Amino acid sequence: MSLIVQKFGGTSVADADRLRHVAKIITDTYAKGHRVVAVLSAQGDTTDELIEKAKEINPNPSPREMDMLLSTGEQISVSLCAMAIEAMGYPVVSLTGWQSGILTNTVSMNARIKRLDTERVEAELDRRRIVIVTGFQGINRLGDITTLGRGGSDTSAVALAAALHADLCQIYTDVDGVYTADPREVKGARKLDEITYNEMLDLATLGAQVLHNRSVEMAKKYNVKLEVLSSFTGHPGTKIKEVAKGVEKSYISSVAKDKNIARIALLGVPDETGTSFKVFSLLAANNINVDIILQGIGQAERKDICFTVAEGDLERAAGLLKDHQESIGFRAMETNADVAKVSVVGAGMIGSPGVAAKLFEALYDAGININMISTSEIKISVLVDRKDAAKAVQVIHDKFFAM
Amino acid sequence: MSLIVQKFGGTSVADADRLRHVAKIITDTYAKGHRVVAVLSAQGDTTDELIEKAKEINPNPSPREMDMLLSTGEQISVSLCAMAIEAMGYPVVSLTGWQSGILTNTVSMNARIKRLDTERVEAELDRRRIVIVTGFQGINRLGDITTLGRGGSDTSAVALAAALHADLCQIYTDVDGVYTADPREVKGARKLDEITYNEMLDLATLGAQVLHNRSVEMAKKYNVKLEVLSSFTGHPGTKIKEVAKGVEKSYISSVAKDKNIARIALLGVPDETGTSFKVFSLLAANNINVDIILQGIGQAERKDICFTVAEGDLERAAGLLKDHQESIGFRAMETNADVAKVSVVGAGMIGSPGVAAKLFEALYDAGININMISTSEIKISVLVDRKDAAKAVQVIHDKFFAM
Repeated sequence: MSLIVQKFGGTSVADADRLRHVAKIITDTYAKGHRVVAVLSAQGDTTDELIEKAKEINPNPSPREMDMLLSTGEQISVSLCAMAIEAMGYPVVSLTGWQSGILTNTVSMNARIKRLDTERVEAELDRRRIVIVTGFQGINRLGDITTLGRGGSDTSAVALAAALHADLCQIYTDVDGVYTADPREVKGARKLDEITYNEMLDLATLGAQVLHNRSVEMAKKYNVKLEVLSSFTGHPGTKIKEVAKGVEKSYISSVAKDKNIARIALLGVPDETGTSFKVFSLLAANNINVDIILQGIGQAERKDICFTVAEGDLERAAGLLKDHQESIGFRAMETNADVAKVSVVGAGMIGSPGVAAKLFEALYDAGININMISTSEIKISVLVDRKDAAKAVQVIHDKFFAM
Repeated sequence: MSLIVQKFGGTSVADADRLRHVAKIITDTYAKGHRVVAVLSAQGDTTDELIEKAKEINPNPSPREMDMLLSTGEQISVSLCAMAIEAMGYPVVSLTGWQSGILTNTVSMNARIKRLDTERVEAELDRRRIVIVTGFQGINRLGDITTLGRGGSDTSAVALAAALHADLCQIYTDVDGVYTADPREVKGARKLDEITYNEMLDLATLGAQVLHNRSVEMAKKYNVKLEVLSSFTGHPGTKIKEVAKGVEKSYISSVAKDKNIARIALLGVPDETGTSFKVFSLLAANNINVDIILQGIGQAERKDICFTVAEGDLERAAGLLKDHQESIGFRAMETNADVAKVSVVGAGMIGSPGVAAKLFEALYDAGININMISTSEIKISVLVDRKDAAKAVQVIHDKFFAM
């Protein structure tokens, strides 16, 4: 008998039929003899509708009251799901975040889980009940309801799995696992059976939004075995763990692209100590994340600095830099939102210098120009023109995964 | 500086405009220097919509999960109301039933308040915040959310007023007070400035549903000064307290009618000890309330028993009695749903035997036949044909309140 935590997102519980389907998945697991804790998001558009209601009354409500409002969404879905399970004749109880002992810090609307007090959940499991828990929410030391911000329900599920020492934490989504590339866009993309935490973390930052980073980081930290799978197909998904089996003799696990990116080039920057610091501390102070950085070699005491930001931050970043042109001392600025980042990820590439060469060869053969390159131990990212992005992913995928 | 508890029902908080209006009433009270606790119901049809959602999934959900579901309704309205008050620039906090320390027994969907732990509410008041509390709900000793059943929000407000030793508990509704008769139906009906708890209790049982009995009983027990007033007009309402000022030299405070009533007559019952007991314990065991009872004087060892029940219970009551005809031993049963109860209520009628005579005279003059009569210390009820009910109320009201 294992303890399994299952998490279902908003689309999976959107209406009565889907809730019944989720109830079926949960009770099938229970009927096999497992103990089950299910973590649910709010139904479909509920959260958006509640935000709408709030904005109608106050364009700038306090985060504390927003949490009070938004947390009702998950409370509605867990009680309805429990009713669906009751109708199937299984013992069940639904619990809110505070009833489940999910204790957070006091940052409303973006709280972090600090501690879990699982006494109630364990008591219910000991009574052989299925336990349905509201995702996305907890309680702080003041006794106020908090919500966890983006990806919060995944995080609730992983935190519960960690605290309960669950054997597996299944994240049900609308995709049936992690692929070697986006199957809607890349021919020959294959589902991976297994992937490591680190690979998954790199994929998440690359825009492959199967799982939120916070939840993967937490799973890695507490060694919670994750599985990403579809609530629609019933097929086995992708397991995420510390060490994964090699992926069919390839060095890499997955190819991904991120179009939500833009490039800024500062030309003719003084080649002095502290210039980079000025640029990047200015951006950091304004909450603008910088991704790939390329610093050219200076000629005649001037050099160029090139870096990427999220496309949504481009205008603000450019404005800030313009305002500080004099103190930074660059001659000119060029911006380009017409770019995309293509990355290969794989724990297998550690100590395999051939991977980069193979990637560059694929792009060269396809006539695709590389703007910038960034590498980490298990990842290589290249910046290409946006029009070339899809083709780049396909030729790289072909190169590494062709049968 | 006084402490005032204000309660607003579902119609008063139905949409953004009405919520803003309620926020205005609350902040106006606060701005006068009072400490304010407001108790809110769920918005308009929210509760009905949630019940609909539940029934779609499970026609017979457990009360425990229904409470989990339904309690979100008030949580939504208190957070939205708090946001409206924030937008007006006042300090405010919304609290759920469990955050307000409303501790109930474990009877889901019809819980009774057992105790209040007002530490959090008082701390918030001490910080000079307006406190908005969810009506209708509490928490039981198992840590589960409970709801209080019909009239629950009124009860929450009165219980908080009692525990906080509030100076006044204002119940805002869509009527502007308690009238000498229903102003929509009776010409010359006037609003009362004051009325006693006992008069109010009798009125509530007579179908004048301004306030639920449970809340009036609790107010009487803990001597909480109540005021019933309109959230729309802003006029002073009717105060309900232990001793009220005399109502304009009249012995009675109010005339009311209840059409939701039916009469059952058991004919030819054996005139033996225990027969009445058999009849009424049978009905009580099946949760059927009996109101007026008339027991005729027997002839030749047989008598008739006549009594009224709620119209909705008539069929069930008649069926039960039929099933037990042999053991009870009545010869025949007659039922009549075409009746109505008309009552006059007034603490002033104690020791004033003239009241009954005056009432009978009014009905006699109007040619209205009286079926049954029931009296208490401060109430006289008569059963009349339903077609005569409106006329009966008018002529009685004219008799007692004519200028």
